[in-house]
Amino acid sequence: MATAAGPLLNDIKISAKPVAGSFKAKFMDAYHRLKKELIADSESFSHTFESREWVSEVLDYNVPGGKLNRGLSVVDSLVLLRSGEELSEDELFLAFALGWCIEWLQAYFLILDDIMDDSHTRRGQPCWFRQPKVGLIAANDGILLRNHISRILKRHFHDKPYYQDLRELFDEVEYQTACGQMLDLITTPPGEVDLSKYVMDTYLRIVKYKTAYYSFYLPVACALYMSGEDDKSKFESAERILVQMGTYFQIQDDYLDCYGHPDVIGKVGTDIEDTKCSWLIVQAIARASPEQKSRLYNNYGRKDPACVAEVKKVYNELNLEKLFLDYESESYENFMSIINEEKSIELQQVLKLFLSKIYKRQK
Amino acid sequence: MATAAGPLLNDIKISAKPVAGSFKAKFMDAYHRLKKELIADSESFSHTFESREWVSEVLDYNVPGGKLNRGLSVVDSLVLLRSGEELSEDELFLAFALGWCIEWLQAYFLILDDIMDDSHTRRGQPCWFRQPKVGLIAANDGILLRNHISRILKRHFHDKPYYQDLRELFDEVEYQTACGQMLDLITTPPGEVDLSKYVMDTYLRIVKYKTAYYSFYLPVACALYMSGEDDKSKFESAERILVQMGTYFQIQDDYLDCYGHPDVIGKVGTDIEDTKCSWLIVQAIARASPEQKSRLYNNYGRKDPACVAEVKKVYNELNLEKLFLDYESESYENFMSIINEEKSIELQQVLKLFLSKIYKRQK
Ligand SMILES: [Mg+2]
Ligand SMILES: [Mg+2]
Ligand SMILES: [Mg+2]
Ligand SMILES: [Mg+2]
Ligand SMILES: [Mg+2]
Ligand SMILES: [Mg+2]
Repeated sequence: MATAAGPLLNDIKISAKPVAGSFKAKFMDAYHRLKKELIADSESFSHTFESREWVSEVLDYNVPGGKLNRGLSVVDSLVLLRSGEELSEDELFLAFALGWCIEWLQAYFLILDDIMDDSHTRRGQPCWFRQPKVGLIAANDGILLRNHISRILKRHFHDKPYYQDLRELFDEVEYQTACGQMLDLITTPPGEVDLSKYVMDTYLRIVKYKTAYYSFYLPVACALYMSGEDDKSKFESAERILVQMGTYFQIQDDYLDCYGHPDVIGKVGTDIEDTKCSWLIVQAIARASPEQKSRLYNNYGRKDPACVAEVKKVYNELNLEKLFLDYESESYENFMSIINEEKSIELQQVLKLFLSKIYKRQK
Repeated sequence: MATAAGPLLNDIKISAKPVAGSFKAKFMDAYHRLKKELIADSESFSHTFESREWVSEVLDYNVPGGKLNRGLSVVDSLVLLRSGEELSEDELFLAFALGWCIEWLQAYFLILDDIMDDSHTRRGQPCWFRQPKVGLIAANDGILLRNHISRILKRHFHDKPYYQDLRELFDEVEYQTACGQMLDLITTPPGEVDLSKYVMDTYLRIVKYKTAYYSFYLPVACALYMSGEDDKSKFESAERILVQMGTYFQIQDDYLDCYGHPDVIGKVGTDIEDTKCSWLIVQAIARASPEQKSRLYNNYGRKDPACVAEVKKVYNELNLEKLFLDYESESYENFMSIINEEKSIELQQVLKLFLSKIYKRQK
């Protein structure tokens, strides 16, 4: 039952111990194996010494440097779906491989996103395309990463009954992510500002396609296929709620960018300076008086700290922090009631694990 | 038998009339159908009015504006492989769809290539990313085109016995093309010149992967799958010779850039100004005296017409035009002898059709 301040994290009961993190070292071993295989692979392309070195650097710089939450959640989900039944070493490796395919997919999109957004840093280091010897070659490196996914799937899953489903799943989610990017790019074209386009319907659509599918639905769908699931309705109910959780996750991200503590979130938020189509600005515009609206229009998207402060002032006048906290508690109730409707206890466990990882997160 | 000036075009006998071009109008109809389907498709992504308009423009600007040789050669090949047996309307459409997948693949690579090469024009119009409202968003548009291929294949080939083979074929060739691009980009990084890297072995490897697989092998492999072929050795012998033909085609392209007539090739060649790793410069460096080499090093890659003239002077001193014409005749003999070893008469016809289309081309 929710308290006044919202439910506590440990209200979410998961039968298996939360396994997040415990696979980290083995997961990294799997990365090194996959990398080695890709670089040694001469079936379709005969590498030169230089090209092999290049690919190796592209991979190490871009693939394993994130938090790896998405990748690790495949194995975490599979463990719960198998409810206690031990995974063999081979199965563990396959779950890691699928996790890495998701990390590869993300790295591919991030490389290109940073080029398009003209960004400077990513994961605490210069963006790949900012490396002097790289530049726009980075675009092709992104494409190489995308192609590695097909090669990993072919090498390790070709004989599985769910191979074709897996291929189509990755296609589908890549397409959705690219469409979300398109929507984002045409709504908020780099270098141009039109706050009148920042409306909730557009915001939700961008987030759903650009982030939620690949970050939340994809890992669970991978685990479902590996667990031998072939009931389409399981995938559909997982999709429905995980896409909602992904949306909630992005809204938190937008909230923390402004209200999170830099020491905790590990960076100083710049969504206001960067004219981001954030949940906060969308809510602010929808609620602002004409006077507040003109202060938002005059100050949003400017690097000047005084402008940023002015935007935050409007946010505070509009009580956006409370709006978020209410949304957060409501979401929790909503998620729990949908999860409890799910017939499969194993899938319930997976969904609760995801919720426990993100609910009320501070970073 | 070859004459002094090399064999004549009509030495190549093809039983079916060369059909190139005769399908052009129907091929364009198929484009409009595929485009309509992609834009109406709301199974995986729910378009907005703006996103639909955007995709429509991306497609019309980038996909159908080339010579369409690659796309049309799928149906041309299939006609020969079926040796006279009439194709149904449905089969025709499927052959067109595969042809369009190749054109989509090319458009995707060209959009990104133009960004990476900082090019200005493509097919007689400004590069897509040069459009003021596009810019680097073009990178994501390229990715969208890539994703359309999977969707076209899924929609129209899902129930075919060769669906999985087709998927893996497109994956394979995309990977090869991306690897060829990588090799090209790291050998001749944009904005940097190091002629010492321009050696024949590297040149041939770049051309093979960057161009030959998708332009020559891919259309025939598509037609082979559609014709029901499942003898892997057929694919392998087609691959072996078509990759060689693709290489020959690129060498012609490099030759024509310098020695072709601008009115005939439809553009003024700029490979020398653009520091391209062309067959001519590779041959020149391999044959130049120290004195000629230093003239090449001092003048290659400069926009100044006097520098271009100086490079061409060295080419002439080294008799590169004759070198090419000899190579061309030798290639012909070589191709014909390999083709005549092929056991399948139908595949022989296909290979001869390809050869007839490119041998001694002036544009
Ligand atoms: Mg970005
Ligand atoms: Mg972006
Ligand atoms: Mg953020
Ligand atoms: Mg180019
Ligand atoms: Mg290029
Ligand atoms: Mg050329």
